[in-house]
Amino acid sequence: MIDKRLQALRQKMAKCGITIYIVPTADFHESEYVGKYFKAREFITGFTGSAGTAVITMEEAGLWTDGRYFIQAEAQLAQSEVKLFRMGEEGVPTVIEFIQEKLTQGGCLGFDGCVINAKMGNQLKKIAQEKGASLYTSEDLVGSIWEERPAMSMEPIFILEERYSGENTESKLKRVRKEMEKQHADVHILTSLDDIAWLLNIRGNDICHFPVVLSFLALTQTECNLFVHSEVLTEQIRQQLNAWGVTIAPYEEIYSYAGQLKAPLTVWIDCARVNFNIYNQLNKDISVFDEQNPTVFMKAMKNPVELQNLRNAHVEDGVAFTKFMYWLKTNIGKIPMTEITASDYLEQCRRQRKGFLDLSFDTIAAYEANGAMMHYCATEDSNAVLEPKGFLLVDSGGHYYEGTTDITRTMALGSITEKQREHFTIVLRSNLNLAAAKFLYGCNGHNLDILSRGPLWEIGMDYKCGTGHGVGYLLNVHEAPNGFRWKIVPERKDSAVFEEGMVTTDEPGVYLEGEYGIRTENELVCRKAEKNEYGQFMEFETITYAPIDLDAIDPSLLTKREKKLLNDYHQMVYEKIAPYLTGEEQIWLKHYTRAI
Amino acid sequence: MIDKRLQALRQKMAKCGITIYIVPTADFHESEYVGKYFKAREFITGFTGSAGTAVITMEEAGLWTDGRYFIQAEAQLAQSEVKLFRMGEEGVPTVIEFIQEKLTQGGCLGFDGCVINAKMGNQLKKIAQEKGASLYTSEDLVGSIWEERPAMSMEPIFILEERYSGENTESKLKRVRKEMEKQHADVHILTSLDDIAWLLNIRGNDICHFPVVLSFLALTQTECNLFVHSEVLTEQIRQQLNAWGVTIAPYEEIYSYAGQLKAPLTVWIDCARVNFNIYNQLNKDISVFDEQNPTVFMKAMKNPVELQNLRNAHVEDGVAFTKFMYWLKTNIGKIPMTEITASDYLEQCRRQRKGFLDLSFDTIAAYEANGAMMHYCATEDSNAVLEPKGFLLVDSGGHYYEGTTDITRTMALGSITEKQREHFTIVLRSNLNLAAAKFLYGCNGHNLDILSRGPLWEIGMDYKCGTGHGVGYLLNVHEAPNGFRWKIVPERKDSAVFEEGMVTTDEPGVYLEGEYGIRTENELVCRKAEKNEYGQFMEFETITYAPIDLDAIDPSLLTKREKKLLNDYHQMVYEKIAPYLTGEEQIWLKHYTRAI
Repeated sequence: MIDKRLQALRQKMAKCGITIYIVPTADFHESEYVGKYFKAREFITGFTGSAGTAVITMEEAGLWTDGRYFIQAEAQLAQSEVKLFRMGEEGVPTVIEFIQEKLTQGGCLGFDGCVINAKMGNQLKKIAQEKGASLYTSEDLVGSIWEERPAMSMEPIFILEERYSGENTESKLKRVRKEMEKQHADVHILTSLDDIAWLLNIRGNDICHFPVVLSFLALTQTECNLFVHSEVLTEQIRQQLNAWGVTIAPYEEIYSYAGQLKAPLTVWIDCARVNFNIYNQLNKDISVFDEQNPTVFMKAMKNPVELQNLRNAHVEDGVAFTKFMYWLKTNIGKIPMTEITASDYLEQCRRQRKGFLDLSFDTIAAYEANGAMMHYCATEDSNAVLEPKGFLLVDSGGHYYEGTTDITRTMALGSITEKQREHFTIVLRSNLNLAAAKFLYGCNGHNLDILSRGPLWEIGMDYKCGTGHGVGYLLNVHEAPNGFRWKIVPERKDSAVFEEGMVTTDEPGVYLEGEYGIRTENELVCRKAEKNEYGQFMEFETITYAPIDLDAIDPSLLTKREKKLLNDYHQMVYEKIAPYLTGEEQIWLKHYTRAI
Repeated sequence: MIDKRLQALRQKMAKCGITIYIVPTADFHESEYVGKYFKAREFITGFTGSAGTAVITMEEAGLWTDGRYFIQAEAQLAQSEVKLFRMGEEGVPTVIEFIQEKLTQGGCLGFDGCVINAKMGNQLKKIAQEKGASLYTSEDLVGSIWEERPAMSMEPIFILEERYSGENTESKLKRVRKEMEKQHADVHILTSLDDIAWLLNIRGNDICHFPVVLSFLALTQTECNLFVHSEVLTEQIRQQLNAWGVTIAPYEEIYSYAGQLKAPLTVWIDCARVNFNIYNQLNKDISVFDEQNPTVFMKAMKNPVELQNLRNAHVEDGVAFTKFMYWLKTNIGKIPMTEITASDYLEQCRRQRKGFLDLSFDTIAAYEANGAMMHYCATEDSNAVLEPKGFLLVDSGGHYYEGTTDITRTMALGSITEKQREHFTIVLRSNLNLAAAKFLYGCNGHNLDILSRGPLWEIGMDYKCGTGHGVGYLLNVHEAPNGFRWKIVPERKDSAVFEEGMVTTDEPGVYLEGEYGIRTENELVCRKAEKNEYGQFMEFETITYAPIDLDAIDPSLLTKREKKLLNDYHQMVYEKIAPYLTGEEQIWLKHYTRAI
């Protein structure tokens, strides 16, 4: 079936004179995850993973994906001619290197310019020019052969009230316009969905687990144009948006809007986020101010209302998780359980909480060896039966009106090995030490990461990922520009200085392939500590409230300070969560939050 | 007197048509400290500090210096028209801002192009162009009015034998040439004195406490031209250099050498180090490869012979320091002592050690409140009498054939306050935690700095400087490219990834103005730890051997781990140093290195 699709695509390519065609995993907005309509790369390769790029020539078809997906991709590509390129492995060319090698004089490089960002598009354009090849970006070739393509999502918009957002739309627009003025930008084209949702205080449901609205936005000092499918608006919401000075235009009109802008305008776009076709619509004499969207920092620095709401959401989420953990700990070995039934039970617990809207991502419930896969998601095939021994790792979260949560707990379902106990305790130390950081304003994740990673480095271990990521407010569970990471990864743009109100996860872990995985994840809010002659000190407030499994701890490995940090944390958890529990659950929680 | 000099300078400026003249603190080689011949800025302003820039217009004369020198500069400038510009203070323009404001259409910006680097020179040239002003850089105007200018230093060269350098000159030249080949550079012009000294295994004495030789070097695949005053060479050394393929040319001929290079040559120069006049000699069609000198990393990564020598040098230095500390601790209150007599006694102890050549910098011996000044140097005026109470901070070091040392100890001369004890202990924790770091290859000083600074940040304190700097091998006591610092300071270029063999100081401190200063400084050698599936782990070896004053410690503030680190360190100190002490000193050292 895949080979047939490739054949059809190659016919189209031949008709257009294209010699190499690129199919990335992307929508028109550079979203981290994409809706069903946009799964062109999955359609053309058969690989269902969340990340990957396909490159098709007349002779070859390749799929590039990262280490998380090697096994899955290998299996899913087996029946087709598509060849797996294991990104990051020695001797494996990158997509760019592959194209540089294959593209020849007189050839033609093609891709849908709506799903490649302007920065990448320009890089590809340069390669084509250097090779004496042409560029073809005006058509979605996969779309043209995709007969039963799902429709584009057009879920209804809802307005996030000010009691949830903490700042009304007019105020946000005013701040962005002030920033535009400062940068001498006349027009700001914003295409990243979470930025638009934050700016207008609107939410939707156009990407699974991402409450965003497929839309584009163009802002000037006097106008605010929202390009959106009219189907997603009720008359009431349309009126509300109009009242805020927002003019509604059809989703597709962003392109003609960009095309009619005239010099000497300066247009602020983040070329790493805006798609290549929009960029190319701009007249050549328009001045482009290519900088990060001003909403990125505004959105990341949660305001006091959002922060108070977030604490409430985390209490709701903590109650759900604690009830789940109580159920798990008291029923394991007594009733049948699997990874999937456990994660279903947890979802039920969440769905009963006030303000719950959706999971913030697919729950990871990974037993023993499955826990060593960082992005495991149980399928009917892999679904492990839970036994009263070893570790169950559960990474999950919810979207609430009062914010988004992301929590991981690893729980001993019975006896564990000494090595498991030691590793669990060291991961706990990592988590506690980072959460307790106090630092001068100006630090970013690179300065602080060793507080978390240090205890693992001491024993010659590491986890091959960042220690934490920013979290949106009823938005993307992964949000720039803050994060914890020891090595700078420029394209991630997650190394911003920590500002008051930023929310970042603290999730160190141990992953032993074929054995087990351990991760303990809390969310931290950055806040100001004292200011004195040395400067402004900053610290974190932990806002995740759920017990860390004392059954898995070796207290002798903790310092006095670490014990105090853990005991203080557990006391807070009890105080926040106990009021919402049954009597039996309270007794259980008391025991599981006891001082050690 | 200063005003008279300024008057004479302004006459010269008028004659040349110059409206603004810049006098930096620099020699022709961008050295951190300069010889007497090069103290033009001191001559023209009267300010004797080690850092500062003078800018003279027809109406004004300004001196820019940093916080270390405000009090001193204020006093030294009082009798002249020179106005102090306190760098870094709010509302104070930078040198560049000042020039941008004062330089007018038709004006002329002047400076001696031999004492401004090419990068800075080009920046100033651009400013002049933008202002419609001209540039005058061919003359040393201060020199032309400086009647009793000291002669340029021409101290004899000596060869550093291979048993000290660990690598012969031919091998080093080969490595640099290989690097040039890799970068397609035909000629490499090297003007930084420590790089030249390292590359040719030569040493001299042309800057106080810096055993370097005033010289320039130009390297091709077949030639190595050393531009040096012939006075510094003996026939034997000349022959030795010739035997290594080094051709001797007069010091000043570097300029004509640069001028005769012809396109299509590519010349490798580090524009931040090579002076503007050399740069300007290059023909315009020559291709300039502007990158850090390849010797920077080679020099910083000490080889196994250097490392073993360094350990020996540190034993010698530790014996000297321990004898001094014994004398200080046992005689305080019994015989009269001042900061100067104490530092003289320490120098005597060093001079008796094997292989000692010179101090590696002016000793800082600072009692109580004087210790709060990071770069204090006792003068007859400031010289404090030492009493049997409070803290004496001593920062000092030596040049030995077997390497350069840099050590700081703060010692209680009698009773200290509880606050002093707490701060001393926290600085000790900072020092120990950084030294015990274990980390993945790829970390730089920004990743690790918090290990040292963290304990101070926890109590809302900080020190306003880096935590440590690289150290040369019988070369500059401050050496790039490694260091510990939490905030990137691009012009310092001290944030390189830690490589095997790099030597870095670990010197956290507490500085309370008007009260006291505490600093504990050891040197750390970076070495490989285990390599496994997570990567190559790195760690430090402490190579400074002298007791850390147990009289000043509050053991209750140390964790179990920190106590072990301290006890292990002290046991090593005793083992290394005791064999070289008298019986009485040994008994004393045993007590001062006891386990706590």
